[in-house]
Amino acid sequence: MNSKTNVAVIGATGYAGSTAATLLLSHPEARLTVATSRSYAGQRLGDVVPGFDGDIVLGAEPDPGDAGVVIVALPHGMTAGLAKTWRREGRSVVDLGADFRLQDQATYKLWYGLDHPAPELLESAVLGLPEVYGADLPGANLIACPGCYSTAAILALYPAFKLGLAGDEVVVDAASGVSGAGRSLALGSHFAETAEDYRAYAVGGHRHKPEVTQVLVGAGARPRLTFVPHLVPMVRGILATCYLDAAPGQSVDSIRDAYRDFYAGAAFVDVVGTPPSTKMVSGTNRALIHVTEQDGKLIILAAIDNLMKGAAGQGIQALNLAMGWPETCGLAFVPRWP
Amino acid sequence: MNSKTNVAVIGATGYAGSTAATLLLSHPEARLTVATSRSYAGQRLGDVVPGFDGDIVLGAEPDPGDAGVVIVALPHGMTAGLAKTWRREGRSVVDLGADFRLQDQATYKLWYGLDHPAPELLESAVLGLPEVYGADLPGANLIACPGCYSTAAILALYPAFKLGLAGDEVVVDAASGVSGAGRSLALGSHFAETAEDYRAYAVGGHRHKPEVTQVLVGAGARPRLTFVPHLVPMVRGILATCYLDAAPGQSVDSIRDAYRDFYAGAAFVDVVGTPPSTKMVSGTNRALIHVTEQDGKLIILAAIDNLMKGAAGQGIQALNLAMGWPETCGLAFVPRWP
Amino acid sequence: MNSKTNVAVIGATGYAGSTAATLLLSHPEARLTVATSRSYAGQRLGDVVPGFDGDIVLGAEPDPGDAGVVIVALPHGMTAGLAKTWRREGRSVVDLGADFRLQDQATYKLWYGLDHPAPELLESAVLGLPEVYGADLPGANLIACPGCYSTAAILALYPAFKLGLAGDEVVVDAASGVSGAGRSLALGSHFAETAEDYRAYAVGGHRHKPEVTQVLVGAGARPRLTFVPHLVPMVRGILATCYLDAAPGQSVDSIRDAYRDFYAGAAFVDVVGTPPSTKMVSGTNRALIHVTEQDGKLIILAAIDNLMKGAAGQGIQALNLAMGWPETCGLAFVPRWP
Amino acid sequence: MNSKTNVAVIGATGYAGSTAATLLLSHPEARLTVATSRSYAGQRLGDVVPGFDGDIVLGAEPDPGDAGVVIVALPHGMTAGLAKTWRREGRSVVDLGADFRLQDQATYKLWYGLDHPAPELLESAVLGLPEVYGADLPGANLIACPGCYSTAAILALYPAFKLGLAGDEVVVDAASGVSGAGRSLALGSHFAETAEDYRAYAVGGHRHKPEVTQVLVGAGARPRLTFVPHLVPMVRGILATCYLDAAPGQSVDSIRDAYRDFYAGAAFVDVVGTPPSTKMVSGTNRALIHVTEQDGKLIILAAIDNLMKGAAGQGIQALNLAMGWPETCGLAFVPRWP
Repeated sequence: MNSKTNVAVIGATGYAGSTAATLLLSHPEARLTVATSRSYAGQRLGDVVPGFDGDIVLGAEPDPGDAGVVIVALPHGMTAGLAKTWRREGRSVVDLGADFRLQDQATYKLWYGLDHPAPELLESAVLGLPEVYGADLPGANLIACPGCYSTAAILALYPAFKLGLAGDEVVVDAASGVSGAGRSLALGSHFAETAEDYRAYAVGGHRHKPEVTQVLVGAGARPRLTFVPHLVPMVRGILATCYLDAAPGQSVDSIRDAYRDFYAGAAFVDVVGTPPSTKMVSGTNRALIHVTEQDGKLIILAAIDNLMKGAAGQGIQALNLAMGWPETCGLAFVPRWP
Repeated sequence: MNSKTNVAVIGATGYAGSTAATLLLSHPEARLTVATSRSYAGQRLGDVVPGFDGDIVLGAEPDPGDAGVVIVALPHGMTAGLAKTWRREGRSVVDLGADFRLQDQATYKLWYGLDHPAPELLESAVLGLPEVYGADLPGANLIACPGCYSTAAILALYPAFKLGLAGDEVVVDAASGVSGAGRSLALGSHFAETAEDYRAYAVGGHRHKPEVTQVLVGAGARPRLTFVPHLVPMVRGILATCYLDAAPGQSVDSIRDAYRDFYAGAAFVDVVGTPPSTKMVSGTNRALIHVTEQDGKLIILAAIDNLMKGAAGQGIQALNLAMGWPETCGLAFVPRWP
Repeated sequence: MNSKTNVAVIGATGYAGSTAATLLLSHPEARLTVATSRSYAGQRLGDVVPGFDGDIVLGAEPDPGDAGVVIVALPHGMTAGLAKTWRREGRSVVDLGADFRLQDQATYKLWYGLDHPAPELLESAVLGLPEVYGADLPGANLIACPGCYSTAAILALYPAFKLGLAGDEVVVDAASGVSGAGRSLALGSHFAETAEDYRAYAVGGHRHKPEVTQVLVGAGARPRLTFVPHLVPMVRGILATCYLDAAPGQSVDSIRDAYRDFYAGAAFVDVVGTPPSTKMVSGTNRALIHVTEQDGKLIILAAIDNLMKGAAGQGIQALNLAMGWPETCGLAFVPRWP
Repeated sequence: MNSKTNVAVIGATGYAGSTAATLLLSHPEARLTVATSRSYAGQRLGDVVPGFDGDIVLGAEPDPGDAGVVIVALPHGMTAGLAKTWRREGRSVVDLGADFRLQDQATYKLWYGLDHPAPELLESAVLGLPEVYGADLPGANLIACPGCYSTAAILALYPAFKLGLAGDEVVVDAASGVSGAGRSLALGSHFAETAEDYRAYAVGGHRHKPEVTQVLVGAGARPRLTFVPHLVPMVRGILATCYLDAAPGQSVDSIRDAYRDFYAGAAFVDVVGTPPSTKMVSGTNRALIHVTEQDGKLIILAAIDNLMKGAAGQGIQALNLAMGWPETCGLAFVPRWP
């Protein structure tokens, strides 16, 4: 017990933060010592997040106490400045939010409408996407976890673009459960308005789009990406349905084989033989990928749990690699059915 | 009362059939005189379809009795042969099923796996899509209502292809409530397996695809269509999200204007300024269309209620035109919110 | 058209108010001339309430303009003072809220925590529950519609207590869809917290309880009522499951017969032979009542749509009677299935 | 690994059976060696139960192979005869079904409509409800797990009746997610008919009622129990809302204290200070109990996951005790939120 690493969760009462706090409860190498909240400081976390089983009182934000690792789940713009302090104090930072996802300051300003608060940290930030940046994560002390949609889309598209298997034109039609909109109250996630409804949103452009583009461009590709998110009346889950064209000489079979090879060593990614559904991965850190085609059009599907592989689970996975712990440490959740 | 037209609904206990039966109850020109069922003959329709408010006992299938108009909601392959008899008897037929949707016998065989049972009727069948074939409907006595997905996709795409506003390449990513899978029992529409889940299906090809292609080709276009349906954990509604490229010289504004002009006289179609959600049209015969773009990619959205504008409502609308009744007759349902 | 009565809806963007506004659009005797909103004045109602089909701009609250009838859907405490003014101006008032439901000032203060703002009006207020107070409604100009739970419970219990068919001890276990919590944002009606959950609330006492007691006491009974509401992950609907004991000499059959007699003339109440489900009445102004027993315990079930028979629909029904219009005027909605 | 006990799951593709199979995958003392299915023999369990992560091919029913422990999830009437054989072969049997729940043959015949197939085994059967029969479980080799509703109701009521804290009259109003109806296809669990609906069923009497009565009578009480189950549009969860009267001299506080004492040593039961919701226990083996009152009426609430504490989880818990393993072995699941 004594050798466990102390970890703080800043912003512990939102869905990403509370999921991270819950995961830490059963993590064999980490110990949740601090959880903070702007709104609920002084209350027990279990009283604010129903079902949370740990005995911890919410601290004042943003004090990580004696934690050597800080997992942050704050709105964009709030984390970057704090990260400067925490890094200066020698703490590792895992950001589940958006402040270090985009490496280019101008792109950050374009999508978030403010100057980046800590541009000097951008270079040291590693994207917490182990299937792509696994080699860079060991020893990393500033980890930026990609967005939930980004994770699904990148896992679906990265091998194709990295390996030159597909053309540049790609449509990502994605859909998320309502927990993806967070715990902040809004008519758009009010039960009576959201149940029995399906809708597209951010049709003109969503902030996760430049994350996907950045990763694909980093792989040497020049994608022309169209990405439209939709809201599904369910709590958890993301499915990305990606439409693209096979590169000359590639068939759906050769591409599927390449995906199987690419993800052969991935602890949490399976290339499966039938279209995955979000429920198959609910509550787990897994991603299911399916590669198929329709009349010659290449279609790649990816399903994840937006709060696990799309947020807190992936953050823990990246932290595991950064700390030299086994990648699956504390993440061995099996799917429940139904 | 005496001047009302007698109408039979064959297959009245499935969702399309029972919706048609319900609509007829309050139709000012039509009178539901016969409703039949393979499984429930002899029972009151209201005992089989909860909430059905009429006083009618289910007859043995497929006897339309004294009805001059037969609305059919049977599985494919069952209607065509019956329609021959009914037409010979001088009855008008409105098929909510698939038997007369595809004008080409080979295409029918390809998608439905059987020889068309009544090819001699194909020529006289009019597609019950008033916004496209409104001119052909007056006097029509064999009306084939298009599928629910087809209706949404065609309403979204037809003006673009008819008027040459877009390129040939088009992705239709569509999602439907579970009632679209019908009332037949299956694990895929079992509550515990379907709730809290979102999935793609028929990714390799869905039977509604050739219907869309047929209509667009009929408009003089040569679309390369990719269509993937998804299942949403809600009862009703379809949203089609269509991705295409504007033709040279066209802008999203010019295309939106063209859509507004095209649908200016359409009783049930509105081109709206924000992305529609399925709930906005639930229980109504309306279609909401939205024309927008993302980084130059043209995106057109269409929302309908799959059982109304996507099935029974559209059938009544087409019948109204065929009979010379006002188009909106018996279909003036306003949306409820929430 | 000219002979229609002008009606204002005050608080038109909440669920009760917007439902009333929607109902007025197709009411043959009334015309919606004013709709007001604290938060959205100046906007089109259709832009605030998706799907609302009328062309009306929200006015500043609480000005009813030229309307002779004011339908009010405001939080408790806000209506009573306004009603004094409106009554003085000669307008009729239909309150969908709580200010005039309890005839006793002390009871009002006990449950709502404030002195009644207009006690002088209490005597003239008629409870807008036509099945009980139908004789008092013609000519009424201050109508207080009972709460949604109250309506279901009273319809289930009133005949038993009025006719002396049951003992005093009664448990009402009721469950409501989430729209019953209104459109105000709260974690308790946030989709991700509410979906896949079922819970009891207000277990110690709910404000609708004294309404039920008041009506039963008014019938000469001395009920010992226990009432626990529950929240169901659905949008609309209330089911009240009531447990009581038959009075000596009464059987479930005699009680059922008495209910059938009692409601024989009720336009919107049916005593049905099987347990009703909320979906059977969704979108309608109907109440379905079922009288049965289990090992000698009398069980009476009532199902309504909380926004229709439980709020706006009942308000219109009561207004119809007050104005001398047909009771079902503008309320002839049939159930949809599924 | 070698020292693990081999366990078979008979009827592994239904919800109780597949949940048991999933739990065994991560159980430190047990190994799933056989899983059988009437309908799917020869297929991989993971292909029939989405998300099931083990590598096991479904065997022909009902052969438990080399398993020393047989967990059975078959319809009533099918297990008892098989259990005779298995017991003769020296295997332990954990029945998640109904065949050994009722100790009285006449009661069994009354509720299940058939003569008990193995009355000679009834005496040796121990009810798999550790909080009540924990002392009888060590060494037990025929364990009958109570029904899901029964478990919730007994946990809510047992201390009150065992300790003489309450009067005889008790109403149990309970509600379950749709997975409680099992994986067999039926209109009553068809998504489109069940979503957006809430209903009571089995109002005249449900088979779980005599189980509750039997346990309370076994505690020396003479309850007059009324039990009405309801169906909630969610996948998992049961809430029992119990209405009773405190015994003379008892207050809600004294009763709550007695419950806290009674469950002080229970690994999976918590007496909590606020009304529990089903989501708080979803995916866990926990029960949350709340003791409160309304105007003197005692109200006790219990929430469980119907497939875990209400079925497979409780079966494993009982098996753990029977085998001398730690009670919580393989059951340490924490709640997820949301």
